[in-house]
Amino acid sequence: MTVPDFQRARSAAAKQLRESTILAAARTLGAEQGIRQITLTDIGEAVGMHKSAMLRYFETREEIFLRLTADGWREWSTALRARLEELAAPTPPAVAGVFASTLAARGLFCDLLAQAPLNLERHVSLDAVRAFKLVTLAEVDAIAAVVQRLLPGLTERDCVDLIAAATAVSGAFWQMATPGPEVATLYRSDPRLAHAVVDVEPRVARLLVAMLEGMLA
Amino acid sequence: MTVPDFQRARSAAAKQLRESTILAAARTLGAEQGIRQITLTDIGEAVGMHKSAMLRYFETREEIFLRLTADGWREWSTALRARLEELAAPTPPAVAGVFASTLAARGLFCDLLAQAPLNLERHVSLDAVRAFKLVTLAEVDAIAAVVQRLLPGLTERDCVDLIAAATAVSGAFWQMATPGPEVATLYRSDPRLAHAVVDVEPRVARLLVAMLEGMLA
Repeated sequence: MTVPDFQRARSAAAKQLRESTILAAARTLGAEQGIRQITLTDIGEAVGMHKSAMLRYFETREEIFLRLTADGWREWSTALRARLEELAAPTPPAVAGVFASTLAARGLFCDLLAQAPLNLERHVSLDAVRAFKLVTLAEVDAIAAVVQRLLPGLTERDCVDLIAAATAVSGAFWQMATPGPEVATLYRSDPRLAHAVVDVEPRVARLLVAMLEGMLA
Repeated sequence: MTVPDFQRARSAAAKQLRESTILAAARTLGAEQGIRQITLTDIGEAVGMHKSAMLRYFETREEIFLRLTADGWREWSTALRARLEELAAPTPPAVAGVFASTLAARGLFCDLLAQAPLNLERHVSLDAVRAFKLVTLAEVDAIAAVVQRLLPGLTERDCVDLIAAATAVSGAFWQMATPGPEVATLYRSDPRLAHAVVDVEPRVARLLVAMLEGMLA
């Protein structure tokens, strides 16, 4: 290896390390308080970098969170597929339950799922959108293949629809279920608003069981 | 009627007229370009009012759009229930089709459905949140009553779940289906991204048919 090659490698490794540090800080802040309010400055403070230095690694705060969304898809997909493979009897309630519990256990991912098409994808470069979409489409294919093997009565389109529905409702219901402390107090204090409180996991599970049973009928 | 009463009534009527004008302008702008980018200043320019004068009628831009979301629930609910009542045979595909077509025909409402829990409800007073929630809960009850009468095999909870799913997926899929012109071009130009294009109405219809058939099974 010549010296310039070595330097390039070292510099690429250093860049990757710095990126990972920024992503980890954004993940921690996002998991604590939702990504809504988190600015580039907040993330910079957490890693001890000035905002202008951060821009060497990511174009915008949205690019950071879109990268976390892609990471979230990979991580959820791996966990979901492992749990599905372990099922003794892959019935619709069992499969729906694994989808619902793995999604409900990932609050930051649910937040990102709702934010990505509304906010994140709209403030990044086309290359960043392309890279993000290729990750999600590959994970959807991987999940669909496992679901179709476990429930052979489903078509490939059924499986893609199921994954689209599971992620869309989990994102939306998570937003409704975490409305901020003042509104949460309001919901608890006014009995007319009792139904405004959404319990994400059981509702997602019920919807997906019904959907799977209908698709298989 | 005493004079102060009359003045109060006239002033209340004038205030209501002004509010309606502001809401109509926001609705037109939102339907044209999505609500994402629309500021109080934009709405003020459309109605010939300074931003500071607008604040006498609405606390924030989010309050304007949350009012439009409540109006959207009333308008959609009325149209949906009328279309459901007209069905000669209220089968699951027929009921699902009416949900999907009435939602897909209301792009601004779909946009608002996704934006409300993420952005709108978080930038208004608790009174505004309460008023909004009471409207949506009343419309959900009204729709659920009609659906349950047409498909008596459904429980009340099934009907509420169905409405929650229909509105959540329509909001999310609409955001994915309208990604902005540059990203839309990217999706069309890269064959690997063909599946990133979401066709809202048929997908919502398929999901709801399966869900209804599963609930009735």
